[in-house]
Amino acid sequence: MSRDRSPGLPEGFRASGTCCGIKSNASKRDLAIFLSETSCAAAGVFTTNRVSGAPVQVSRKRLPSQKIRGVIINSGNANACTGPEGIATAERMTAELAAQIGCEADQILVCSTGVIGVQLPVEKISQKLPEAVATATGDEAGITSAATAMMTTDTYAKLITRDVDLETGRVTLTGVAKGAAMIAPNMATMLAVIMTDLTLDSDQAENLLPVAVNQSFNCISVDGHTSTSDSVLLLANGKSGVRLKDRGDVAQFQAALMKMCVDLAQMIIRDAEGASHFVTVDVEGARNFEEAEIIAREVANDVLVKTAIAGNDPNWGRIVSACGRTGCLDSEADVSLAINRHAVFKKGKPVAFDESKISASMQTGDVVLDITLTQGEGRWRIWTSDLTTDYVRLNSEYTT
Amino acid sequence: MSRDRSPGLPEGFRASGTCCGIKSNASKRDLAIFLSETSCAAAGVFTTNRVSGAPVQVSRKRLPSQKIRGVIINSGNANACTGPEGIATAERMTAELAAQIGCEADQILVCSTGVIGVQLPVEKISQKLPEAVATATGDEAGITSAATAMMTTDTYAKLITRDVDLETGRVTLTGVAKGAAMIAPNMATMLAVIMTDLTLDSDQAENLLPVAVNQSFNCISVDGHTSTSDSVLLLANGKSGVRLKDRGDVAQFQAALMKMCVDLAQMIIRDAEGASHFVTVDVEGARNFEEAEIIAREVANDVLVKTAIAGNDPNWGRIVSACGRTGCLDSEADVSLAINRHAVFKKGKPVAFDESKISASMQTGDVVLDITLTQGEGRWRIWTSDLTTDYVRLNSEYTT
Repeated sequence: MSRDRSPGLPEGFRASGTCCGIKSNASKRDLAIFLSETSCAAAGVFTTNRVSGAPVQVSRKRLPSQKIRGVIINSGNANACTGPEGIATAERMTAELAAQIGCEADQILVCSTGVIGVQLPVEKISQKLPEAVATATGDEAGITSAATAMMTTDTYAKLITRDVDLETGRVTLTGVAKGAAMIAPNMATMLAVIMTDLTLDSDQAENLLPVAVNQSFNCISVDGHTSTSDSVLLLANGKSGVRLKDRGDVAQFQAALMKMCVDLAQMIIRDAEGASHFVTVDVEGARNFEEAEIIAREVANDVLVKTAIAGNDPNWGRIVSACGRTGCLDSEADVSLAINRHAVFKKGKPVAFDESKISASMQTGDVVLDITLTQGEGRWRIWTSDLTTDYVRLNSEYTT
Repeated sequence: MSRDRSPGLPEGFRASGTCCGIKSNASKRDLAIFLSETSCAAAGVFTTNRVSGAPVQVSRKRLPSQKIRGVIINSGNANACTGPEGIATAERMTAELAAQIGCEADQILVCSTGVIGVQLPVEKISQKLPEAVATATGDEAGITSAATAMMTTDTYAKLITRDVDLETGRVTLTGVAKGAAMIAPNMATMLAVIMTDLTLDSDQAENLLPVAVNQSFNCISVDGHTSTSDSVLLLANGKSGVRLKDRGDVAQFQAALMKMCVDLAQMIIRDAEGASHFVTVDVEGARNFEEAEIIAREVANDVLVKTAIAGNDPNWGRIVSACGRTGCLDSEADVSLAINRHAVFKKGKPVAFDESKISASMQTGDVVLDITLTQGEGRWRIWTSDLTTDYVRLNSEYTT
């Protein structure tokens, strides 16, 4: 049983969002901090891009951990492709926050999002850090301002607070995230921080998080572009006194963590830059999970599929062709396709359908593509957005 | 030595373009035929998409061959995803042309391009085929009308006629092609037919063509979408009496064939739907050729790179990030990048550069991205186009 409640933080956590002047609009918050009174078990999942931001390199080394006390996140500058100076900057951010709250630098994690290839003006953060720590609170104001300070081109803060009743007691989960769209002039990034007052050890955190991420954040795709800075962090401070005592508890918490990640991931897609449709690509019957994922991604990232959806056009040929391009099919006779539950192609043969009816259903903004193969048990689902002229306009506007 | 001349056909070939009414605009040509007086050695390279059009399935079975007499191509309907009825239609087209010119059906090759998933109204072709054969000529009028009849959304016919002086004598090469862009409401296709009066046997044709295609048509990418119907055909009828006598001759003709394919491929990119830039992605220093190709394709197909180029924005972070995403790098320290010969990133570190100068150079419509790695000898080059709001608009307009 889990129940959403008004935004807040689990016991023992506090947060704040502050303006440092890193963003060009100086009135916008660009520094978020999340603090725990006591040490947390923590785990992280980071970008697989071989070009990774300095904060990713610094945080990755510190995880898994049993002693994390806080997270510092700035928006407006990704501190990526910035060489050794960038690493020093990321380390300095953690050292300064550590000094403020009385712990070691390696007890702090760091994330940055924004423009890449430009050195981060770290003094601006140093100046405002005392204020950020002083104003951090455990209430709605604290978490909301922190969630806002992580935003780049997101149009709203992505924030969920949820009570979860485990067999052994009630814990709170709070998750914040920012958008996955990569948008001009800068490279935005998917960031999420999930905090709980459950007691975990770092091994448990390290086991639980990747499973949840794999079925949620790894199932969304706006433009197929894995950013240099994508990071998902889990912090558990144990303040509730609730522990996972048996496998049943673990499974229950795993499910709640997964649900939190799925809900945050879907919020990101629904707020994707320039998008007008939320698209679910659901592949079943592939030879195995790997091939199901390959097919789902090929369809989800296909610009012709995405532009057709933008125009409410049930252009099924593009979808079937994208499936064929993967090399995972033996022939088109393997494929059946339904758009918003209307069959359009069955085992290699076109099916007569009412185009205007399907098009009308697409105009609701939700599109489900069911791709059914005849090869095996492999299944995968991806959530994505469409590709609109707005997306191109936003991503091709010249920066200077 | 090779020299372009005014459009025409090699000795012994003739061609025509005819209106059958398959295209919705009934005044547009939509049936092209290419005929040889005598049997040709012939080879073909076809789409790797597992969902392939009926004509691809029919033609592929007939190649390589020593006895091809002609090619029949319609535009306006791709005859793809049309099941067994589609195969029967493609076979009927070849049988009817064979009957007209007095040969067997398996001496004729067939291609179709246009909308997919709709049965081709083959009677319209049957009715006009006698006229098509009667009007076929070896002069400029014949080849120009045939090249025009292959077009879908191409804005001009792609046609090259070239005399090639081999050690053993002069031969003529004529190549025609149509666009690779996949455009709404239909799925367009890359088709090319190359004819020569050189004497080849089918083994030679089968060896020469894939090498040329691999370095030309396989190096262009508009949207990363391999169509269901892509086909390149080579026909050699031997009318010049010139043969390839030694390895030097073979190398000379191979180079001429490659050049023809490169020139046709570049014409296709320059005419890509909605495009405003011709982009060359040049990767050097990768671990091997395979990885160089992976990196080049990732950059060429990245929607964020393509939209930045549309806006004349030297947004190098997106390019470096796309390289990193492939998993082929160890870290960003492997990468250097120049845009139109201006260095912007050197071995993992940003380089100061004049953005307005690079942006101005991009406004010429030609963009060269030089990606230099430090890993080995692997190199690959891709030609591509940018991604504009026009592309999205053209691809998202609803069809009905």
